[in-house]
Amino acid sequence: MQTDHLSATFNALADPTRRAILARLALGEVSVKELAAPFDMSLQAVSKHLKVLERGGLIVRGREAQWRPCRIEPAAFKTVDDWLDDYRRLWEARLDRLAEYLEGEQADEKKRVRKPRSRARKAPH
Amino acid sequence: MQTDHLSATFNALADPTRRAILARLALGEVSVKELAAPFDMSLQAVSKHLKVLERGGLIVRGREAQWRPCRIEPAAFKTVDDWLDDYRRLWEARLDRLAEYLEGEQADEKKRVRKPRSRARKAPH
Repeated sequence: MQTDHLSATFNALADPTRRAILARLALGEVSVKELAAPFDMSLQAVSKHLKVLERGGLIVRGREAQWRPCRIEPAAFKTVDDWLDDYRRLWEARLDRLAEYLEGEQADEKKRVRKPRSRARKAPH
Repeated sequence: MQTDHLSATFNALADPTRRAILARLALGEVSVKELAAPFDMSLQAVSKHLKVLERGGLIVRGREAQWRPCRIEPAAFKTVDDWLDDYRRLWEARLDRLAEYLEGEQADEKKRVRKPRSRARKAPH
Protein backbone atom coordinates (compact mmCIF):
# COMPACT_ATOMS: atom_id res chain seq x y z
CA MET A 1 0.00 0.00 0.00
CA GLN A 2 1.25 3.41 -0.97
CA THR A 3 1.30 5.78 1.96
CA ASP A 4 0.43 9.39 1.25
CA HIS A 5 3.18 11.95 1.93
CA LEU A 6 1.59 13.60 4.93
CA SER A 7 0.95 10.25 6.63
CA ALA A 8 4.59 9.26 6.05
CA THR A 9 5.68 12.56 7.58
CA PHE A 10 3.49 12.17 10.67
CA ASN A 11 4.56 8.55 11.03
CA ALA A 12 8.23 9.63 10.99
CA LEU A 13 7.53 12.19 13.71
CA ALA A 14 5.80 9.61 15.95
CA ASP A 15 9.00 8.54 17.71
CA PRO A 16 11.06 10.40 20.33
CA THR A 17 14.42 9.18 18.96
CA ARG A 18 13.56 10.36 15.46
CA ARG A 19 12.50 13.75 16.84
CA ALA A 20 15.83 13.93 18.75
CA ILE A 21 17.67 13.17 15.48
CA LEU A 22 15.78 16.04 13.81
CA ALA A 23 16.69 18.37 16.69
CA ARG A 24 20.36 17.48 16.14
CA LEU A 25 20.10 17.95 12.36
CA ALA A 26 18.45 21.34 12.84
CA LEU A 27 21.90 22.50 14.05
CA GLY A 28 23.60 21.39 10.84
CA GLU A 29 24.57 18.57 8.50
CA VAL A 30 26.24 15.51 10.10
CA SER A 31 27.27 11.98 9.15
CA VAL A 32 25.39 8.92 10.38
CA LYS A 33 28.36 8.08 12.65
CA GLU A 34 28.26 11.49 14.31
CA LEU A 35 24.50 11.18 14.68
CA ALA A 36 24.73 7.77 16.35
CA ALA A 37 27.33 8.81 18.97
CA PRO A 38 25.09 10.66 21.50
CA PHE A 39 22.22 8.16 21.14
CA ASP A 40 24.11 5.05 22.30
CA MET A 41 22.63 3.18 19.34
CA SER A 42 24.09 0.95 16.65
CA LEU A 43 24.69 2.50 13.24
CA GLN A 44 22.14 0.03 11.92
CA ALA A 45 19.45 1.24 14.31
CA VAL A 46 20.18 4.88 13.43
CA SER A 47 20.07 4.02 9.71
CA LYS A 48 16.62 2.51 10.18
CA HIS A 49 15.35 5.69 11.79
CA LEU A 50 16.94 7.79 9.03
CA LYS A 51 15.13 5.74 6.39
CA VAL A 52 11.79 6.50 8.06
CA LEU A 53 12.67 10.19 8.29
CA GLU A 54 13.72 10.18 4.62
CA ARG A 55 10.44 8.52 3.59
CA GLY A 56 8.65 11.24 5.54
CA GLY A 57 10.53 13.87 3.51
CA LEU A 58 11.98 15.33 6.71
CA ILE A 59 15.62 14.70 5.82
CA VAL A 60 17.72 14.35 2.70
CA ARG A 61 20.85 12.21 2.52
CA GLY A 62 23.93 12.75 0.41
CA ARG A 63 24.84 10.01 -2.07
CA GLU A 64 28.55 9.73 -1.16
CA ALA A 65 29.15 6.02 -0.51
CA GLN A 66 31.16 6.34 2.71
CA TRP A 67 30.10 9.62 4.24
CA ARG A 68 26.40 10.15 3.66
CA PRO A 69 25.68 13.47 5.31
CA CYS A 70 22.12 13.99 6.49
CA ARG A 71 20.43 17.32 6.39
CA ILE A 72 17.03 18.49 7.48
CA GLU A 73 14.43 19.31 4.82
CA PRO A 74 12.40 22.34 5.97
CA ALA A 75 9.70 21.88 3.31
CA ALA A 76 8.18 18.88 5.12
CA PHE A 77 7.84 20.89 8.34
CA LYS A 78 6.18 23.65 6.36
CA THR A 79 3.68 21.09 4.99
CA VAL A 80 2.75 20.04 8.53
CA ASP A 81 2.37 23.70 9.49
CA ASP A 82 0.11 24.33 6.50
CA TRP A 83 -2.03 21.35 7.46
CA LEU A 84 -2.28 22.68 11.05
CA ASP A 85 -3.54 26.00 9.74
CA ASP A 86 -7.10 24.69 9.38
CA TYR A 87 -7.14 23.84 13.09
CA ARG A 88 -5.35 26.93 14.35
CA ARG A 89 -8.64 28.87 14.53
CA LEU A 90 -9.95 26.21 16.97
CA TRP A 91 -7.41 26.84 19.70
CA GLU A 92 -7.26 30.56 18.93
CA ALA A 93 -11.05 30.74 19.35
CA ARG A 94 -10.67 28.92 22.66
CA LEU A 95 -8.03 31.41 23.83
CA ASP A 96 -10.31 34.28 22.73
CA ARG A 97 -13.18 32.83 24.76
CA LEU A 98 -10.88 32.47 27.77
CA ALA A 99 -9.76 36.11 27.39
CA GLU A 100 -13.42 37.23 27.14
CA TYR A 101 -14.32 35.21 30.21
CA LEU A 102 -11.45 36.70 32.21
CA GLU A 103 -12.38 40.22 31.09
CA GLY A 104 -15.96 39.56 32.16
CA GLU A 105 -14.77 38.30 35.54
CA GLN A 106 -12.66 41.41 35.95
CA ALA A 107 -15.62 43.67 35.07
CA ASP A 108 -17.80 41.82 37.60
CA GLU A 109 -15.10 42.19 40.21
CA LYS A 110 -15.01 45.96 39.61
CA LYS A 111 -18.80 46.16 39.97
CA ARG A 112 -18.62 44.22 43.24
CA VAL A 113 -15.95 46.56 44.59
CA ARG A 114 -17.99 49.66 43.58
CA LYS A 115 -21.35 48.49 44.95
CA PRO A 116 -20.72 46.42 48.04
CA ARG A 117 -24.20 47.19 49.44
CA SER A 118 -26.10 45.81 46.44
CA ARG A 119 -24.29 42.51 47.05
CA ALA A 120 -25.09 42.50 50.75
CA ARG A 121 -28.76 42.98 49.92
CA LYS A 122 -28.77 39.80 47.89
CA ALA A 123 -27.37 37.69 50.72
CA PRO A 124 -29.95 35.48 52.49
CA HIS A 125 -31.21 36.91 55.83
CA MET B 1 5.86 0.17 26.30
CA GLN B 2 4.46 3.54 27.29
CA THR B 3 4.28 5.90 24.33
CA ASP B 4 4.96 9.56 25.04
CA HIS B 5 2.08 11.97 24.37
CA LEU B 6 3.58 13.69 21.35
CA SER B 7 4.39 10.37 19.66
CA ALA B 8 0.80 9.19 20.25
CA THR B 9 -0.46 12.44 18.71
CA PHE B 10 1.74 12.13 15.62
CA ASN B 11 0.85 8.46 15.28
CA ALA B 12 -2.86 9.35 15.31
CA LEU B 13 -2.28 11.93 12.57
CA ALA B 14 -0.42 9.44 10.35
CA ASP B 15 -3.56 8.20 8.60
CA PRO B 16 -5.73 9.93 5.96
CA THR B 17 -9.02 8.54 7.35
CA ARG B 18 -8.20 9.78 10.83
CA ARG B 19 -7.33 13.22 9.44
CA ALA B 20 -10.64 13.22 7.53
CA ILE B 21 -12.45 12.38 10.80
CA LEU B 22 -10.73 15.35 12.45
CA ALA B 23 -11.74 17.63 9.57
CA ARG B 24 -15.36 16.54 10.13
CA LEU B 25 -15.13 17.05 13.91
CA ALA B 26 -13.67 20.52 13.41
CA LEU B 27 -17.16 21.49 12.18
CA GLY B 28 -18.81 20.31 15.39
CA GLU B 29 -19.63 17.44 17.75
CA VAL B 30 -21.13 14.29 16.17
CA SER B 31 -21.98 10.71 17.14
CA VAL B 32 -19.95 7.73 15.92
CA LYS B 33 -22.86 6.74 13.68
CA GLU B 34 -22.95 10.14 11.99
CA LEU B 35 -19.17 10.04 11.61
CA ALA B 36 -19.21 6.61 9.97
CA ALA B 37 -21.86 7.50 7.34
CA PRO B 38 -19.73 9.43 4.79
CA PHE B 39 -16.75 7.08 5.17
CA ASP B 40 -18.45 3.88 4.04
CA MET B 41 -16.90 2.11 7.00
CA SER B 42 -18.24 -0.16 9.71
CA LEU B 43 -18.91 1.36 13.13
CA GLN B 44 -16.25 -0.96 14.46
CA ALA B 45 -13.62 0.40 12.04
CA VAL B 46 -14.53 3.98 12.92
CA SER B 47 -14.39 3.14 16.63
CA LYS B 48 -10.85 1.82 16.18
CA HIS B 49 -9.75 5.06 14.55
CA LEU B 50 -11.46 7.08 17.28
CA LYS B 51 -9.55 5.14 19.94
CA VAL B 52 -6.24 6.06 18.27
CA LEU B 53 -7.32 9.71 18.02
CA GLU B 54 -8.38 9.64 21.68
CA ARG B 55 -5.01 8.18 22.72
CA GLY B 56 -3.35 10.98 20.77
CA GLY B 57 -5.36 13.51 22.77
CA LEU B 58 -6.90 14.88 19.55
CA ILE B 59 -10.51 14.07 20.47
CA VAL B 60 -12.58 13.63 23.60
CA ARG B 61 -15.62 11.34 23.79
CA GLY B 62 -18.70 11.71 25.89
CA ARG B 63 -19.48 8.94 28.36
CA GLU B 64 -23.16 8.48 27.45
CA ALA B 65 -23.61 4.73 26.82
CA GLN B 66 -25.62 4.94 23.59
CA TRP B 67 -24.73 8.28 22.04
CA ARG B 68 -21.09 8.96 22.64
CA PRO B 69 -20.50 12.31 20.96
CA CYS B 70 -16.95 13.00 19.78
CA ARG B 71 -15.44 16.43 19.88
CA ILE B 72 -12.09 17.74 18.77
CA GLU B 73 -9.53 18.73 21.43
CA PRO B 74 -7.67 21.86 20.25
CA ALA B 75 -4.95 21.54 22.93
CA ALA B 76 -3.27 18.61 21.13
CA PHE B 77 -3.03 20.64 17.90
CA LYS B 78 -1.50 23.49 19.87
CA THR B 79 1.12 21.07 21.26
CA VAL B 80 2.11 20.04 17.72
CA ASP B 81 2.27 23.71 16.75
CA ASP B 82 4.52 24.48 19.73
CA TRP B 83 6.81 21.60 18.78
CA LEU B 84 6.98 22.91 15.20
CA ASP B 85 8.08 26.31 16.49
CA ASP B 86 11.70 25.18 16.85
CA TYR B 87 11.77 24.33 13.14
CA ARG B 88 9.83 27.32 11.89
CA ARG B 89 13.03 29.40 11.70
CA LEU B 90 14.48 26.81 9.29
CA TRP B 91 11.92 27.32 6.54
CA GLU B 92 11.58 31.00 7.32
CA ALA B 93 15.36 31.36 6.91
CA ARG B 94 15.08 29.53 3.61
CA LEU B 95 12.33 31.89 2.42
CA ASP B 96 14.47 34.85 3.54
CA ARG B 97 17.43 33.52 1.53
CA LEU B 98 15.17 33.06 -1.50
CA ALA B 99 13.88 36.64 -1.12
CA GLU B 100 17.48 37.92 -0.82
CA TYR B 101 18.49 35.96 -3.90
CA LEU B 102 15.57 37.33 -5.91
CA GLU B 103 16.31 40.88 -4.75
CA GLY B 104 19.94 40.38 -5.80
CA GLU B 105 18.83 39.09 -9.19
CA GLN B 106 16.58 42.10 -9.61
CA ALA B 107 19.40 44.50 -8.67
CA ASP B 108 21.71 42.78 -11.18
CA GLU B 109 19.04 43.04 -13.82
CA LYS B 110 18.72 46.80 -13.18
CA LYS B 111 22.53 47.18 -13.47
CA ARG B 112 22.54 45.31 -16.75
CA VAL B 113 19.75 47.50 -18.10
CA ARG B 114 21.55 50.68 -16.97
CA LYS B 115 25.04 49.76 -18.20
CA PRO B 116 24.75 47.70 -21.33
CA ARG B 117 28.28 48.72 -22.46
CA SER B 118 30.07 47.46 -19.32
CA ARG B 119 28.60 44.08 -20.04
CA ALA B 120 29.67 44.18 -23.66
CA ARG B 121 33.24 44.96 -22.51
CA LYS B 122 33.34 41.72 -20.49
CA ALA B 123 32.39 39.62 -23.50
CA PRO B 124 35.27 37.60 -25.04
CA HIS B 125 37.09 39.23 -28.05
